[in-house]
Amino acid sequence: MKKTIITISREFGSGGRTIGHLVAEKLGYPYYDKELIKTVAEKTGFDPNYVEEYGEYSPGKTLLSLLSSYTGSRGTMGGMSIYDFLYVVQRKVILEVADKGPCVIVGRCADYILKDREDALHVFIHADEAFKEERIVRLYGESEKKPAERLKEKDTKRAVNYKHFTDRNWGDARNYGLSLNSSTLGIDKCVELICEVANLD
Amino acid sequence: MKKTIITISREFGSGGRTIGHLVAEKLGYPYYDKELIKTVAEKTGFDPNYVEEYGEYSPGKTLLSLLSSYTGSRGTMGGMSIYDFLYVVQRKVILEVADKGPCVIVGRCADYILKDREDALHVFIHADEAFKEERIVRLYGESEKKPAERLKEKDTKRAVNYKHFTDRNWGDARNYGLSLNSSTLGIDKCVELICEVANLD
Repeated sequence: MKKTIITISREFGSGGRTIGHLVAEKLGYPYYDKELIKTVAEKTGFDPNYVEEYGEYSPGKTLLSLLSSYTGSRGTMGGMSIYDFLYVVQRKVILEVADKGPCVIVGRCADYILKDREDALHVFIHADEAFKEERIVRLYGESEKKPAERLKEKDTKRAVNYKHFTDRNWGDARNYGLSLNSSTLGIDKCVELICEVANLD
Repeated sequence: MKKTIITISREFGSGGRTIGHLVAEKLGYPYYDKELIKTVAEKTGFDPNYVEEYGEYSPGKTLLSLLSSYTGSRGTMGGMSIYDFLYVVQRKVILEVADKGPCVIVGRCADYILKDREDALHVFIHADEAFKEERIVRLYGESEKKPAERLKEKDTKRAVNYKHFTDRNWGDARNYGLSLNSSTLGIDKCVELICEVANLD
């Protein structure tokens, strides 16, 4: 069955976002990433930067569970923590986007949110450490933290966020139709394989 | 870089062994599965059935760690438990097989044992529950246990065995160059994709 909804989960620095862009371009499908953030920001009233930061990254291993039951000065939304509220809105936007037709969606637990759609192909992109380190320094510049530390921090937050909202392990091959190592295959080959698998009858 | 050593890890019932056979046939590489068992049996003096059972499946979640330090009536091999001893011999055989030249190896932690070889492609094959259930009943017959139970039991043992000897999580996409869902892709497409990726320059 042809897959017209493509979700891409990715390790930080693996090139997953670039791959998503290129797949969308090649298949002529709309690409959702920043657009989702904008819509979620509009629906929630949150700043887009805030949505970008906390829509995919938990505030930390121990903090997330604390904040999920947080009733302090920043308040809760209908009994929910702001993180849960953000997830609920984001989930609704992703379901609406998928209902509209073919698309490529990067990150934001979209693989889990759309797991029951038979027309969806869920992809996980990962890469070797050296490849990711070189890539983040080249694309996002140096920082006071070592590249290895930056990778670990970001992916740990993604994994904690994913576990919290899906109760699944981030990066488990069994959650994806296709998982690829972009450093051994190369970005272009990943794009080609994803398009090939998506277009199977 | 062309990959001439192909390891295939697989969920029970996913068709990983069949895929391994077909990949070996298509690439003209020797296929190691039962042959490994025979060699390990010869080197250890154990019965091949015993090697088949315990070379890949731990005796159970709690039992494995107990047995690993077991010094009871069945004795230990040079201070090791029989399970550790079996792993050490199996590891040596796998390293020797890979040194000999191109090959396809199914299961037995070969992905971990050969993780540092740049000429190796590590593949994980998984599938949806219904596909695996139908397959094991068709291929291995009925049993007093429900198919779902049989799947869970076998894969839990594989995961425990893998964790014990590698300290990695079985099925984590990041341990493989390529992970495929054989129930959505089909056996033949999996074979085709593996050969395609293995033959990349």
